[in-house]
Amino acid sequence: MTDQHAERRAPAKPPARSTTRPSPGEDWTQWPTYNAATLGFRNYWYPVVWERDIGDKPQAVTLLGEKIMVAREGDKIYALKDRCPHRGVPLSHGRREFPGTVSCAYHGWTFDLESGNLSAVLTDGPESPICGRLSVKTYPVEQRLGLVWIYVGDGEPHPIEQDIPAELLDNDHVMGGKIDLRAGNWRFAAENGFDEGHAKYLHNTALWRLFKVMPAWNKTRVAEVGPWLIRVQDEVHWEADYPGLGTWSNKRWWKRMPLPDAPGKGKSVNPVIAGLDIPGFVSIRLPGLLRVAYPHFIHYEWYVPVDADTVRYVQMMVRFESGAKGLLFKFKYLSAIRWLFHGQFTAQDAWMVDVMDAPPEKLYRPDLSITGWRRLIEKARPKPQPYDPASGSPRA
Amino acid sequence: MTDQHAERRAPAKPPARSTTRPSPGEDWTQWPTYNAATLGFRNYWYPVVWERDIGDKPQAVTLLGEKIMVAREGDKIYALKDRCPHRGVPLSHGRREFPGTVSCAYHGWTFDLESGNLSAVLTDGPESPICGRLSVKTYPVEQRLGLVWIYVGDGEPHPIEQDIPAELLDNDHVMGGKIDLRAGNWRFAAENGFDEGHAKYLHNTALWRLFKVMPAWNKTRVAEVGPWLIRVQDEVHWEADYPGLGTWSNKRWWKRMPLPDAPGKGKSVNPVIAGLDIPGFVSIRLPGLLRVAYPHFIHYEWYVPVDADTVRYVQMMVRFESGAKGLLFKFKYLSAIRWLFHGQFTAQDAWMVDVMDAPPEKLYRPDLSITGWRRLIEKARPKPQPYDPASGSPRA
Amino acid sequence: MTDQHAERRAPAKPPARSTTRPSPGEDWTQWPTYNAATLGFRNYWYPVVWERDIGDKPQAVTLLGEKIMVAREGDKIYALKDRCPHRGVPLSHGRREFPGTVSCAYHGWTFDLESGNLSAVLTDGPESPICGRLSVKTYPVEQRLGLVWIYVGDGEPHPIEQDIPAELLDNDHVMGGKIDLRAGNWRFAAENGFDEGHAKYLHNTALWRLFKVMPAWNKTRVAEVGPWLIRVQDEVHWEADYPGLGTWSNKRWWKRMPLPDAPGKGKSVNPVIAGLDIPGFVSIRLPGLLRVAYPHFIHYEWYVPVDADTVRYVQMMVRFESGAKGLLFKFKYLSAIRWLFHGQFTAQDAWMVDVMDAPPEKLYRPDLSITGWRRLIEKARPKPQPYDPASGSPRA
Repeated sequence: MTDQHAERRAPAKPPARSTTRPSPGEDWTQWPTYNAATLGFRNYWYPVVWERDIGDKPQAVTLLGEKIMVAREGDKIYALKDRCPHRGVPLSHGRREFPGTVSCAYHGWTFDLESGNLSAVLTDGPESPICGRLSVKTYPVEQRLGLVWIYVGDGEPHPIEQDIPAELLDNDHVMGGKIDLRAGNWRFAAENGFDEGHAKYLHNTALWRLFKVMPAWNKTRVAEVGPWLIRVQDEVHWEADYPGLGTWSNKRWWKRMPLPDAPGKGKSVNPVIAGLDIPGFVSIRLPGLLRVAYPHFIHYEWYVPVDADTVRYVQMMVRFESGAKGLLFKFKYLSAIRWLFHGQFTAQDAWMVDVMDAPPEKLYRPDLSITGWRRLIEKARPKPQPYDPASGSPRA
Repeated sequence: MTDQHAERRAPAKPPARSTTRPSPGEDWTQWPTYNAATLGFRNYWYPVVWERDIGDKPQAVTLLGEKIMVAREGDKIYALKDRCPHRGVPLSHGRREFPGTVSCAYHGWTFDLESGNLSAVLTDGPESPICGRLSVKTYPVEQRLGLVWIYVGDGEPHPIEQDIPAELLDNDHVMGGKIDLRAGNWRFAAENGFDEGHAKYLHNTALWRLFKVMPAWNKTRVAEVGPWLIRVQDEVHWEADYPGLGTWSNKRWWKRMPLPDAPGKGKSVNPVIAGLDIPGFVSIRLPGLLRVAYPHFIHYEWYVPVDADTVRYVQMMVRFESGAKGLLFKFKYLSAIRWLFHGQFTAQDAWMVDVMDAPPEKLYRPDLSITGWRRLIEKARPKPQPYDPASGSPRA
Repeated sequence: MTDQHAERRAPAKPPARSTTRPSPGEDWTQWPTYNAATLGFRNYWYPVVWERDIGDKPQAVTLLGEKIMVAREGDKIYALKDRCPHRGVPLSHGRREFPGTVSCAYHGWTFDLESGNLSAVLTDGPESPICGRLSVKTYPVEQRLGLVWIYVGDGEPHPIEQDIPAELLDNDHVMGGKIDLRAGNWRFAAENGFDEGHAKYLHNTALWRLFKVMPAWNKTRVAEVGPWLIRVQDEVHWEADYPGLGTWSNKRWWKRMPLPDAPGKGKSVNPVIAGLDIPGFVSIRLPGLLRVAYPHFIHYEWYVPVDADTVRYVQMMVRFESGAKGLLFKFKYLSAIRWLFHGQFTAQDAWMVDVMDAPPEKLYRPDLSITGWRRLIEKARPKPQPYDPASGSPRA
């Protein structure tokens, strides 16, 4: 999922490095870290559910193939491994008997939400010898941007702020969002998101682009800017003639061209968010977050690994305003953007992510966006979640 | 499934042996016979369907992973391997052309119900050379208690009376019952049945216990009495205080306590069935039969292995009366017990059997009931039905 | 599927060779070519869909385990491997941008329908370096009898006329037909079709036979006549007495016997199609085509392999007439034959093909039809489509 609007803008910062040649290889063995990351990368914070959807009653979520129980106690939200060590019954079926605990539905084994310790066994009395001698794994949890974030990793987590775009933490904003489970591996979703090539053709039929022309084809580079990899358009072509076939363009008489808003043309690029210093129209970063900077708002999407064949697709549309302008945006989101963009437009992406079947693959010039993303990962060397294809679960 | 009512009664007979310590092991390798018994044990009689539900038309059932065709001829019921040896079409699709035979739907291969011999091949004429030279396996069948029982085993079966509780054979009674296929391996169902710990917590919300308090926790032993393993309550506690958490109890103002009916308290324990000399409130025996002796009736449940992930759950509620009292019980069963106990109450057990996931497991004190059951099996050394995990079927 | 009507006729030509003894083996290792042909045989033309159902919009079909995209351009129909080599998206999701091409829905990779060459990449401009350097496999396609035929094979295909019965190419006719996907391997469908034994018993209850008696049992030979293997009835028995069981027959008071139409009885056998010199009532040929010659029309059925567990069942009923007689037949087909014969009658076959489970198998005398068919294949040595049981797909 991306959109080509105003892609000819140069990045706000000069790119640190650029690459132009996609690899000719057909499989993923040249990207071993990426190739191993069927279930994503450990040691990151992932957004999982809306804060407002978590109450006292335990709920089950799956993250990087790990089954996790989530429940609220007052303002705080807790996450525990969703398996009672006694007989393997999911704690998400459990009940809440005492504050700060969850009790397994089967025998009343009662775990402390904070520590995971077995603090009481209701069917074995107060002197139950097993009490205090067992615990279930707990997961660090944070609440930011209205979302519940869970850290899947080893040791103490880093501050969650490192995994959230700075502009979202430092500025007033309003937002609307949508969380869906979608078919397909998270890597296909991420590649589709940063993919330079597809939008011009696939989204040609999207209602979101009904009145705005998209380019026909571009010449593109990718560049690293801080944690982000960005796409830079060196050339933008609005139509092309294919000898022996005909002309192809997204232009239609009823569609308007993007404004001549490139830097140097004497017009503000991005009146609202320019001050935020957002480099690039489309950018991606680890562990799988895409940012698309429209003139008046920014779209974010997280590709949160669920299992080998499912991705949790967390979409947010953000406007950096407050007060009446903010309220108006909220209304615009709920009445239009949610259905046109977070709905029909990205459903076209979901369709492709579902039917895609690679490797093997044959890459073409615009796929330098995809190979750039894979290369970024190989350089950063995040830790793949171990995966056992036979069971479809994380390997112990 | 069990119920805690009146559990403080001592067994009618002194236990032959008792054990108090569950094993600390996390897997089942220390119980090799049990561990191998995914599809149950051979050389037993199993109840399968109601007599009244079997007519002339062949029906298919699965038992210990074996596919079996069942059909009636007059008063007699027959069971044959449900596969025509010709081309593998199930005989349960067949038709009844001649008395005492079943004909495969495909080519009219006609098998004698009693012997399994191929006695005619309708599409090859009376002199068909294959006639009399083939047979399909037959299974011993008996009818008792309104049920069709099938023996899966090797050689001549022992008398079925050995596999039916004596009190059911020797006394007048009325009964109501229910047969369901339920998700989960038969061993989880059996363990859940004899499990000392779960009822107090899981069935806390059962309508069946709406007006009767259950204990909060017990100290329990198990003991062998003849073929049965029984649970013996050494201590019964009706509430408990968990430091730092609070008090937990099944008591509610509207629930009444069980009567002070323990032996020596000058009150009949079990006015109706005491004469039957039923030891223990809850008892279990091979190949997987649970008995729960309420003051006025006895509940039986058989865990009949179907396949690795399905159990045939045969429930019976029996009152040892006849005449008007019997009729009244029948009415009580159909109007209430069937829905409250054989329905909603044991559906809670079915839920747990379905979501349970062990080994690994961590056992606690009340699980001496489960380890006692496993130990009983290791001592008895019944023959596990061979199982091929790859095909999910019995190994040839 | 077959029907016993008038089976006592001798073949029009003397059989080239005959066999009478089915093999006693229980598995298929003695027929190695057949045993390997889970996905059918390469190097044949197969009927796949009706011409009239293929338009501009690409459609997906599976043939011998291969996924194929089919689309029309004017009068011509094309078939390409249904996988864009870029990222594996099926071309059958694609769009038609330029005449004679199909464009992948994802990035607009545009392939020439005739050659399969990548002739344009809409999202990479006219100078895209990958253009002209890739192609997708194309399949030879022909249109005959209102059907689209696809050749799955190696090298140049032989003329399609070799795979279509000559009488259909050389004579005026009208026809009605039905194409279904049915459960079961194509070999079970083919064996069922040519099977001498089953119709007398299985189709006993078919409405199609409601008013016509079928034999009770026959003595049969098979014989090769050109590419066909035919069944020859040496004896036809209309009822039989099974000692100790009773009499069995398809005769009923309301059913009429077939006319005494055997050769030499002074009556035309097959007034309409006799001139066509059709040998045998039922005949079969490679790669899996059955022909049943009724007095006034011929039924054909093709068993087209889809995958290991699915067969495309192509049925045609043909009358060799034109003008008013032809029109009348068309009406008779649509109002009756389609529902009685191509519907309920062959649905009984589909049922058996679905539940059949062989090998192992035990064959009987009438199965010389099946072993004759297998032997024909071993002699002809067609090339099995390589099959990988692990993936369920053709092995590369």
